[in-house]
Amino acid sequence: MTLDVPALLAALTLEEKASLLDGADFWRTQPVERVGIPGIMVTDGPHGLRKQAGESDHVGLNDSVPATCFPPAAGLASTWNPGLLHRIGEALGRECRAEQVAVLLGPGVNMKRSPLCGRNFEYFSEDPLLAGELGAALVNGLQGTGVGASLKHFAANNQETDRMTVSADIDERTLREIYLPAFERVVTQAQPWTVMCAYNKINGVYASEDPWLLTTVLRDEWGFEGLVVSDWGAVNRRDAGVAAGLDLEMPSSGGLGTRVIVDAVKAGALSEADVDRAVTRVLTLVDRSQGALAPGQTFDADAHHALAREAATASAVLLKNDDAILPLDPRSGGTVAVIGEFARTPRFQGAGSSQVNPTRVDTALDALRTALDGRREVSFAPGFVIESAEADPALVEEAVRTAAAAEVVVLFLGLPPSYESEGYDRDHMDLPAHQIDLLHAVADANPQVVVVLSNGSVVTVAPWQDRARAVLEGWLLGQAGGAATADLLLGAADPAGRLAETVPVRFADNPAVGNFPGEFGHVRYGEGLLIGYRWYDAHQLEVAYPFGHGLSYTTFDYTDLSTAVRADGDQPLVDVTVTVVNTGARAGRETVQVYVTDPQAAVYRPEQELRAFTQVSLEPGESTAVTLTLAARAFAYWHPAMRRWVVEGGAFGIRVGASSRDIRLTGTVELAGQDVTAPLTTDATVDAWLAHPAAGDWLREQLGDGMFTAMLSDPKNGQMMRAIPLVRLSRFPGFPVTEPDVEAAVQRFGAQ
Amino acid sequence: MTLDVPALLAALTLEEKASLLDGADFWRTQPVERVGIPGIMVTDGPHGLRKQAGESDHVGLNDSVPATCFPPAAGLASTWNPGLLHRIGEALGRECRAEQVAVLLGPGVNMKRSPLCGRNFEYFSEDPLLAGELGAALVNGLQGTGVGASLKHFAANNQETDRMTVSADIDERTLREIYLPAFERVVTQAQPWTVMCAYNKINGVYASEDPWLLTTVLRDEWGFEGLVVSDWGAVNRRDAGVAAGLDLEMPSSGGLGTRVIVDAVKAGALSEADVDRAVTRVLTLVDRSQGALAPGQTFDADAHHALAREAATASAVLLKNDDAILPLDPRSGGTVAVIGEFARTPRFQGAGSSQVNPTRVDTALDALRTALDGRREVSFAPGFVIESAEADPALVEEAVRTAAAAEVVVLFLGLPPSYESEGYDRDHMDLPAHQIDLLHAVADANPQVVVVLSNGSVVTVAPWQDRARAVLEGWLLGQAGGAATADLLLGAADPAGRLAETVPVRFADNPAVGNFPGEFGHVRYGEGLLIGYRWYDAHQLEVAYPFGHGLSYTTFDYTDLSTAVRADGDQPLVDVTVTVVNTGARAGRETVQVYVTDPQAAVYRPEQELRAFTQVSLEPGESTAVTLTLAARAFAYWHPAMRRWVVEGGAFGIRVGASSRDIRLTGTVELAGQDVTAPLTTDATVDAWLAHPAAGDWLREQLGDGMFTAMLSDPKNGQMMRAIPLVRLSRFPGFPVTEPDVEAAVQRFGAQ
Repeated sequence: MTLDVPALLAALTLEEKASLLDGADFWRTQPVERVGIPGIMVTDGPHGLRKQAGESDHVGLNDSVPATCFPPAAGLASTWNPGLLHRIGEALGRECRAEQVAVLLGPGVNMKRSPLCGRNFEYFSEDPLLAGELGAALVNGLQGTGVGASLKHFAANNQETDRMTVSADIDERTLREIYLPAFERVVTQAQPWTVMCAYNKINGVYASEDPWLLTTVLRDEWGFEGLVVSDWGAVNRRDAGVAAGLDLEMPSSGGLGTRVIVDAVKAGALSEADVDRAVTRVLTLVDRSQGALAPGQTFDADAHHALAREAATASAVLLKNDDAILPLDPRSGGTVAVIGEFARTPRFQGAGSSQVNPTRVDTALDALRTALDGRREVSFAPGFVIESAEADPALVEEAVRTAAAAEVVVLFLGLPPSYESEGYDRDHMDLPAHQIDLLHAVADANPQVVVVLSNGSVVTVAPWQDRARAVLEGWLLGQAGGAATADLLLGAADPAGRLAETVPVRFADNPAVGNFPGEFGHVRYGEGLLIGYRWYDAHQLEVAYPFGHGLSYTTFDYTDLSTAVRADGDQPLVDVTVTVVNTGARAGRETVQVYVTDPQAAVYRPEQELRAFTQVSLEPGESTAVTLTLAARAFAYWHPAMRRWVVEGGAFGIRVGASSRDIRLTGTVELAGQDVTAPLTTDATVDAWLAHPAAGDWLREQLGDGMFTAMLSDPKNGQMMRAIPLVRLSRFPGFPVTEPDVEAAVQRFGAQ
Repeated sequence: MTLDVPALLAALTLEEKASLLDGADFWRTQPVERVGIPGIMVTDGPHGLRKQAGESDHVGLNDSVPATCFPPAAGLASTWNPGLLHRIGEALGRECRAEQVAVLLGPGVNMKRSPLCGRNFEYFSEDPLLAGELGAALVNGLQGTGVGASLKHFAANNQETDRMTVSADIDERTLREIYLPAFERVVTQAQPWTVMCAYNKINGVYASEDPWLLTTVLRDEWGFEGLVVSDWGAVNRRDAGVAAGLDLEMPSSGGLGTRVIVDAVKAGALSEADVDRAVTRVLTLVDRSQGALAPGQTFDADAHHALAREAATASAVLLKNDDAILPLDPRSGGTVAVIGEFARTPRFQGAGSSQVNPTRVDTALDALRTALDGRREVSFAPGFVIESAEADPALVEEAVRTAAAAEVVVLFLGLPPSYESEGYDRDHMDLPAHQIDLLHAVADANPQVVVVLSNGSVVTVAPWQDRARAVLEGWLLGQAGGAATADLLLGAADPAGRLAETVPVRFADNPAVGNFPGEFGHVRYGEGLLIGYRWYDAHQLEVAYPFGHGLSYTTFDYTDLSTAVRADGDQPLVDVTVTVVNTGARAGRETVQVYVTDPQAAVYRPEQELRAFTQVSLEPGESTAVTLTLAARAFAYWHPAMRRWVVEGGAFGIRVGASSRDIRLTGTVELAGQDVTAPLTTDATVDAWLAHPAAGDWLREQLGDGMFTAMLSDPKNGQMMRAIPLVRLSRFPGFPVTEPDVEAAVQRFGAQ
């Protein structure tokens, strides 16, 4: 079926058109049966399908049909592997087709501004490049199957507290360089069918009715061609939303939105052209969905489970591994004590709208037993009750006994589900105290402790990690996480995950202290550009584990860095080539990270920023040269006065390494860049006038060899005098340039 | 002479009135000879009189008549001694009277937001209470002599970079709690004759034309009765300034301002009533000045020098004193090596408009020689050239030789004058590298090193202070600093100075990293409330020396803390009583500091805030009980929604100690406080509705025992659901409350 969109638009009444801009229920768009427009179904994601079975309840949180639960974004991000995310996107598409779902609501590419955000498990990273690359890969994979994505939550939805009303107060440069680029990258690289606007306000304006955000930036600048849908319940003033570029309200407003739109058009407050534009986008979405909605499609649940296991394996990050305690040798005779309820009752996804009803669930305990297959005895003690606030002495005693009798202990610790969820933020970033007490008790009994963590957002490890010989950060690994964990612990797979977020030493170190979650309707993004590693670098803070960190069972060397400037000016292209060598005894995959520094800019710049990354799989002793290309945005900043991206000429540092704090090689490239002379304004200082090519000559002529020329070059007070705006100095008695002179000169020189 | 202000106002033409709102030249107001209105003279301060001799130049920076140079505010603040500042104010008044100066342009009570601010030497503190108390004392002393003060720079002028145009972007709570209270305290406690508006903008509006700042806050809320004068060159749109409450433009605009005002009135853009109001204030100022302007008055330069010496003695802060190397025993036989050019060429004040032409200058070298009077030999080596960027090998060699031959070394280090000045900011906070190299060389030759610092704003000490046995932070000590330094080194006086600003370990630790000095016309006050110790506490950062720190040659114990709530409600009064004991062997003066904590507020609050302080002088073995009273503002916060100060009931912590990190005693007071329930708004969450006494009952009735009641109390998703604004939920299918219901309920319950 193909819809003739222009013809349908012409055939629809205003009321019918307005009705198309509202949902039919919680998950479906409105049909218009009179002219044969069907409704389509959209459902939650992002890491699996959450299609409610039967009738949806009124808030959309009932049980859903079984679907493969891939690792949530906190896990997937640690893969640093766009190819893998592309394949997961394809699998998600197949599952959507099997359920006649037209659009999957994801991915979420908001930044992890604070470790406390309750929904961090659904987001990728503290770095916009990494989040954008991974998000784009997922969308391309998904949409390649004919199922739409919904890029969310656009924009600056970086907390759950007051998420539906809070104003995220962010200066434009910070928005442009930190909070928007992941969205921009997904839009420009993957053209998602839909973008979901956020609940919150940005600088006082609801995202759901912000024409700058939804039209100027998203469409005019980035070229978005799809439909904008509201987050569920994000609509404030429906008519203002339509005018701003919010096409579809979800879920159904029960006709309220339709009436508001019709009334506004009739009152002349909203143009019918705006309505038509939104309707066209809805019809286009319905039309492009039809191909995938044929009934009777299926997916291979086993194959998808295997993919989930591959993803989980790639998601875990080996933080530390003292004396190579890992991998555990399957052929060694000693008992492996598995301790911790999470080994038996895995926490593999987060709570809220993204919660998938998995097709099956692996546990690490079962997987270890299966893998070892009697070669090593596997004992087990739960150690604690997950949601309990206190230790259970009997369980602790059993765990200690179990540990003491074993050769090695694998201790599963993590955050209880109630600690983190859509809908609220954490108030600290520690594991439950009784779990840490258990670690101490277990380590006292047997110091050969490997800790496996299950947590959707980062936890402090500094207070206790000296009691663990190894720490495997498992994040939330999806339904196949148990088997993946066993593979990693036993060396059937090599840990290739790398941190997509910094693990700080303490909560007090984090950038949003005092600025999160805000109060009384406002949250100040006071740290500006300095989120994540940008902050820890600027403040020279020690971290527990830096952004980009992750150990492997093998080792890699970096050699022979070279750079080549292939283009310059405002669209530079720089090739960075480096050779990576596997110097260890087994195959492994290394993530090569390229950070760029700009030590001489006219604006404040972070110490270093991730600008490219790639992965290379190497056999022992194998080496390969990889080339990563840096384009304009790797060097550009958002110019606050010119309000566009500029590449300022000068020397840029190139840092190549295995993490943000494990830089192996450094180089420098010189770029000519572009002219970034801001135009002179009435406010410009004498220094700015004198520095201007043409205006400087004019001013020097006006001043002549009078006393002001002497004053402005006076070694004692000259600097202070030259910092005065010329227009202010023109008021001073005897100054040879008048205020009208300055105004005329601004006209003459200002545009240059 | 007394002016009949109403009669004069009635007699003046519009042009004459407008002319009175402009300066006559750089330092004088306009006369109107036709009706017998004289001009008056105002001159720079704040720590001494800077009256230009003869004709003023066009920018007001020529040499001035001799006057006593008291320590700049960086020194005076460290006295924590309002009584002393009152006496200095009186002395300044006497010097003004002797020179027929009607108004002294000071004090400056801006906050030390960043250690890099070039004008920090003119400001008191990073804490608004301390700055306000000291500023009020100075103003009361000065104005008691019949000479006016000019409280400056109002407001948020916390940097020199782009100071004339930058917009200080600050949320209201931060303004109210950090950047305005020192001004508020001076206005309410001392009613300065004039307030000087700042150059900069606040949230985009020039201070010189901000009606909220100059009228709503300053006059309507604080009760200011005096005149507002522009900082020199701060006028932007003169007519908007008059309307906003900027009465007097200085210096003369050469008639430009007068013409703008007259034209605006004639065009109906400015009301003549606004002009009359400003003229009344000018005439009132001229009138109240007359008593002090009688010719032939003199002051006692020797007595003022003695006061400057007393002030300098009280200003220096003994940071460390290992093994009690200080005081130096005058009767010990060994040679004292004095090293460092600053001992011979003291740096005793900062550069820019505050620079005084001193009546005389003591040097530490001379003072030490005089005080020791041959009892100990005093050798000297300059060690370095102050403004040189590099070491002079011959001078270093001489210094090392001198040190090696002595029993003890007093090494004078400091910032060259070019490092800090009005008009520009520093770009780092380190001493010149060659001075630190000299310290190492000298300490290698003789480890008995005492460092004396001369610096207007804080410098890093962590990189080098382990090479010094003692460090005396001298700031800038005014013209008698040399003698004061000798008194302190030799024990003729006990060090009683306490830090009015934190000495951080490193520049990277400071709160304004990434947020100072801003760029392209904006500086984001991203750290919010967390300046100074509030930041270091919140981020749990080690500091080199904490706010409030300072050693004495004696020691003090604190005992017997008690608290008494004398009043409660919205105007609480709490007495804090503590006994201080001098446990050392000599007399000394201790500064008792009271910090208040509010661990349970509905808003984010700093870990602790200075809320009271007092000083007590004690003989050895003597003890005394002191009582400090905390009033409402010690507990209140600025409520962002109610837009007023509120005292929220609950438990407040009382911390009494010798510095912000040397808390000796703690207590708790329970206050009932006042009702701070913010009115319900359309945005209010379900939780807020349910918590409201009346509206909660209404909502529960509407929901009945339907499915939404169950959902809202669901253990899994209830918290997320209750965080949704009621008006958003009203759009959900089947919800029993409609949007009009919510709006009606806001009307009904919102105002309660």
